[in-house]
Amino acid sequence: MTTPIEFYFDFTSPYSYLASEMIEPLAARHHRSVVYRPTLLGAAFKVSGQRALTEIPLKGDYSRRDLARCARFYGIPFQIPAPFPVGTVTAARSCLVLQRDDPSLAVPFIHRLFCAYFVQGRNISEGGVVHSVLAETGADAAAVLAAAAQPGNKEALKAAVDESIARGVFGAPFFFVDEEPFWGCDRLPQMERWLASGPF
Amino acid sequence: MTTPIEFYFDFTSPYSYLASEMIEPLAARHHRSVVYRPTLLGAAFKVSGQRALTEIPLKGDYSRRDLARCARFYGIPFQIPAPFPVGTVTAARSCLVLQRDDPSLAVPFIHRLFCAYFVQGRNISEGGVVHSVLAETGADAAAVLAAAAQPGNKEALKAAVDESIARGVFGAPFFFVDEEPFWGCDRLPQMERWLASGPF
Repeated sequence: MTTPIEFYFDFTSPYSYLASEMIEPLAARHHRSVVYRPTLLGAAFKVSGQRALTEIPLKGDYSRRDLARCARFYGIPFQIPAPFPVGTVTAARSCLVLQRDDPSLAVPFIHRLFCAYFVQGRNISEGGVVHSVLAETGADAAAVLAAAAQPGNKEALKAAVDESIARGVFGAPFFFVDEEPFWGCDRLPQMERWLASGPF
Repeated sequence: MTTPIEFYFDFTSPYSYLASEMIEPLAARHHRSVVYRPTLLGAAFKVSGQRALTEIPLKGDYSRRDLARCARFYGIPFQIPAPFPVGTVTAARSCLVLQRDDPSLAVPFIHRLFCAYFVQGRNISEGGVVHSVLAETGADAAAVLAAAAQPGNKEALKAAVDESIARGVFGAPFFFVDEEPFWGCDRLPQMERWLASGPF
């Protein structure tokens, strides 16, 4: 019995979006499932003293070029959205609700929300956009958003974020394979070797 | 007539060391030469507000694990040295002297100095260690170190560092292929496609 690949992401993280387009086929090649773990990178950035990539002098300019080139390299549709980055609390809370109450819709929602932001350029920090994407996914959007705003669900996201930091998740995408951590799209080849041949 | 691959590095940068072990065969596969450009990352870090990877909370712990795993993935001997990071002014100045006065020894010196630090664990911030590595390379160590300390050579390194920052080099290894920037060992596959098939 193998354990699932754990995939930590933030909906505003462009490299998380790129990874989200690659992780399912990769996992399938190695007979693994994927557990999607939404988190909020802002909280981790406070601990590590980092900030959004595009806001860092020198590195920011490069990262915009790198992102677009990575997307072309992988063959994934992509544009850098504006505004960027955006808050993803409503998106992440909605994701948790679906995972709890309507799990078959959770992964389709994740893909649609990433595409809404990084392909269609819609501002996913807005409740109205999250509502639309929930509806497009086939969920009861109003009910999900109402459940997302419940104190218990807010607490659940807070606990998930705290747990991610406790596990050392300082950026995204961040993966665990049998507790081995892999950070970044560019570690997928190493993760794939790990899955294929075991620890190296 | 093709242009050389430009390779910016700092002798205390472990990913630069890993790249230094891979760049020559990569360049040869595409009939390119390599121009080695020593720099001092500390100056770039002041501009970008970054600091040494291993000193960043959360990211530091991961980076030590990632470095060791990357080295195993690439099949390159490696250990994280102590102390780490170290100052590399004397090393970089000596490299510039060799590149100017005895260019056939410059690349062998670069490889030996990286190995001294990341394989043998010698403290390359010490003038005595740089002296030894120069001698092992077959250089007139005392003459190189004397030339390295000349005001004109100090200015040459300062100009090289300033130029690297002006070109956007915020970390290392950092490469340019026909002015296209690539940062990190993990961008070597993209650089290789660029070299093989042209811009994508």
